[in-house]
Amino acid sequence: MNDTSASLSHDDLLDRLADVAVATGVNVQEGQDLLVSADVTMVPLARRIVERAYARGAGLVTLSYDDEAATLARFRYGGDQAFDHDRPWLHEATARAMADGKIARLKIIGGDPNLLDGQDHEKVAKAERLAAAAGKPVIEKITRFETNWSIVAYASEAWAKTVFPNDENALARLWQAIFAASRVDASVADPTEAWRKHNAALSARRKLLDDKQYDALHFRGPGTDLKVGLAEGHSWGGGAGKTIQGVSCNPNIPTEEVFTTPHATRVDGTVASTKPLAHQGTLIRDIAVRFEGGRIVEASASTGEAALLKLLDVDDGARRLGEVALVPHSSPISASGILFYNTLFDENAACHIALGQSYAKCMKGGGTASAEELGARGANASMIHVDWMIGSGEIDIDGITEAGEAEPLMRGGEWPGEAR
Amino acid sequence: MNDTSASLSHDDLLDRLADVAVATGVNVQEGQDLLVSADVTMVPLARRIVERAYARGAGLVTLSYDDEAATLARFRYGGDQAFDHDRPWLHEATARAMADGKIARLKIIGGDPNLLDGQDHEKVAKAERLAAAAGKPVIEKITRFETNWSIVAYASEAWAKTVFPNDENALARLWQAIFAASRVDASVADPTEAWRKHNAALSARRKLLDDKQYDALHFRGPGTDLKVGLAEGHSWGGGAGKTIQGVSCNPNIPTEEVFTTPHATRVDGTVASTKPLAHQGTLIRDIAVRFEGGRIVEASASTGEAALLKLLDVDDGARRLGEVALVPHSSPISASGILFYNTLFDENAACHIALGQSYAKCMKGGGTASAEELGARGANASMIHVDWMIGSGEIDIDGITEAGEAEPLMRGGEWPGEAR
Ligand SMILES: [Zn+2]
Ligand SMILES: [Zn+2]
Ligand SMILES: [Zn+2]
Ligand SMILES: [Zn+2]
Repeated sequence: MNDTSASLSHDDLLDRLADVAVATGVNVQEGQDLLVSADVTMVPLARRIVERAYARGAGLVTLSYDDEAATLARFRYGGDQAFDHDRPWLHEATARAMADGKIARLKIIGGDPNLLDGQDHEKVAKAERLAAAAGKPVIEKITRFETNWSIVAYASEAWAKTVFPNDENALARLWQAIFAASRVDASVADPTEAWRKHNAALSARRKLLDDKQYDALHFRGPGTDLKVGLAEGHSWGGGAGKTIQGVSCNPNIPTEEVFTTPHATRVDGTVASTKPLAHQGTLIRDIAVRFEGGRIVEASASTGEAALLKLLDVDDGARRLGEVALVPHSSPISASGILFYNTLFDENAACHIALGQSYAKCMKGGGTASAEELGARGANASMIHVDWMIGSGEIDIDGITEAGEAEPLMRGGEWPGEAR
Repeated sequence: MNDTSASLSHDDLLDRLADVAVATGVNVQEGQDLLVSADVTMVPLARRIVERAYARGAGLVTLSYDDEAATLARFRYGGDQAFDHDRPWLHEATARAMADGKIARLKIIGGDPNLLDGQDHEKVAKAERLAAAAGKPVIEKITRFETNWSIVAYASEAWAKTVFPNDENALARLWQAIFAASRVDASVADPTEAWRKHNAALSARRKLLDDKQYDALHFRGPGTDLKVGLAEGHSWGGGAGKTIQGVSCNPNIPTEEVFTTPHATRVDGTVASTKPLAHQGTLIRDIAVRFEGGRIVEASASTGEAALLKLLDVDDGARRLGEVALVPHSSPISASGILFYNTLFDENAACHIALGQSYAKCMKGGGTASAEELGARGANASMIHVDWMIGSGEIDIDGITEAGEAEPLMRGGEWPGEAR
């Protein structure tokens, strides 16, 4: 029964999304500062979030808007001197200020997936490499959960047009999909309660997998026969996470995945992407790669291959895995049938792997262990972290025990006995 | 002949303003980074500026938008914990990055002069004090001209309504006034050439006054009989300034003033404001103060007196002068007859004094001298710098020579022989 469906205006839905972002997503604490970043076109959600954060008792809330038009101006009008450095000073200072959970971070994403289409590939790659290097201190703070953080989505015109081309209701349809996936639409009576239940289900799944401590996962499907060794003392994440200080937060709104840390040198076989990867404005389709000893030794794509190959060359860790994630094919986002051209959504439609940096939180004791220690146990390090989808309704996954026995984990993309 | 007047659209005028801001204002150099700050409502000018900066060969341009609505949310919804600190980490990092002219700064102002009307005065004062303390490292970098910087104006709805209440064309009228004062309107054939001439005239006036090295200035007019001692080895500024690296920039667009450094302990007498002071959302009218030995010992105002007294209590330097400026009563802004409720404009309509921090650049050798050295020569130090207007068509000013002789400097608010 969806009696409330007609009664929720767009403003009501934005209110609900802001509520979930602040309370369930970043869960900003009494007296804790908050950094909110958004594009300049996302004012209606950004302001709601700031108001709610203050109303919850936050310390100082810093709302900082970027502008995609300014980003684009760099590529259109900037000379070489605009591409030989980034702003490491800003990211370093931000990371220092975030330490010990002093500042929580909430990012609103949803810009134009094709923003840099047609721009000079060299410049795009250079800017990406510089941004990744400069941004590393902040990424480390959040991947180590030294503070609570979250990412939520806002429907931009450009994104909507990409998802629903030639549809004059594109923007409304994308908003509907975001509200639904974020569990705030009218089918949900109480978004906060819905998130509590969802987090509990993901937590139960994590606990099962944590107890198993599989040596490897074995993926089989069309174009895929891949053994993903898991890091020693890996730990499964998914849904709500806890910071070093013990503050719970949902880093991704929406989220459907459980995920852990592959072993950087124990991945072997071939794997094919099942959805396009939208990366820095380039759409990369039909990725096919072969791993040997954890490293990608062959890679191709039907479109965007150059962008893929550049990505793999960012650093040595870019050719190795930092994450493996399990998502049932029947997840709400997969069921919507929408290709969002955005990882926050698409990764929750399918099982996926990520090239690059691993999450310390997905290693036992990862919050306090050194990078060297984690590396020795198989955790990968890189300036990038790029997810791409390898799941579908045709994928089977086994868990391989320490003793080398295969246990059926997913069949036809579903947890056994849980297909909906 | 204003043949071009009909042919310049609002967009054309914004283009011209952006040209002047980038080329004449901040004069960003080849390979130099630029920090552009603006309110989120100022997108049309901010983007034009970013494009032009890149086209001129700038390094990385950082466009950072604030949001007055978020500022207001802090006062409406924030508890005490939102008012016990600012972001010193951000300002310190920015100041370090600006050192040696590595990053130029361009600020677009023009927000709601009454934004904080009706908010808790304690909170407003606390936030102001914290912001001034946190922002000090950046203010020092720009007042010492360690990098090139500029401020330009953008007409917001709220500002326009304050300037032209009950006028449905308020926004258009304010824009017209901004374009005219900034020397980019259709009456100007070539804005860059107009600024070159204007800067040359201001420079000639500065040179005359620098050569005089008056011991003091004596202001007389209704409610005013004030002797403003000048600092030892003071230097006059106005129009274009030069950074330590020798880069020319116009810190204020518009600007009509020549100004220098008063002696922090040699100001005596009474002085009355001739225009209201719009300060942090409060309008302070009919300021009347008495100085003894450089320090304000009595102060009153017909409205906003509480805000004035709080301002004077920010620190010891807030009760002393950091600037004295001469502007002919016939200046274009004064001639417009508009009260802008904004210092960038109103200070260029009249002679003024500023409470608080002095400009090292207005001291000989100020670019390299220590704060202690400058202080010993009479330069004031404070976390604030607040200008208020004491000039009018009724003010007479004498320059007092080292020998104690009075030389007529301005009569009836005009440079002798220059009244237009
Ligand atoms: Zn994932
Ligand atoms: Zn990932
Ligand atoms: Zn001034
Ligand atoms: Zn001033």
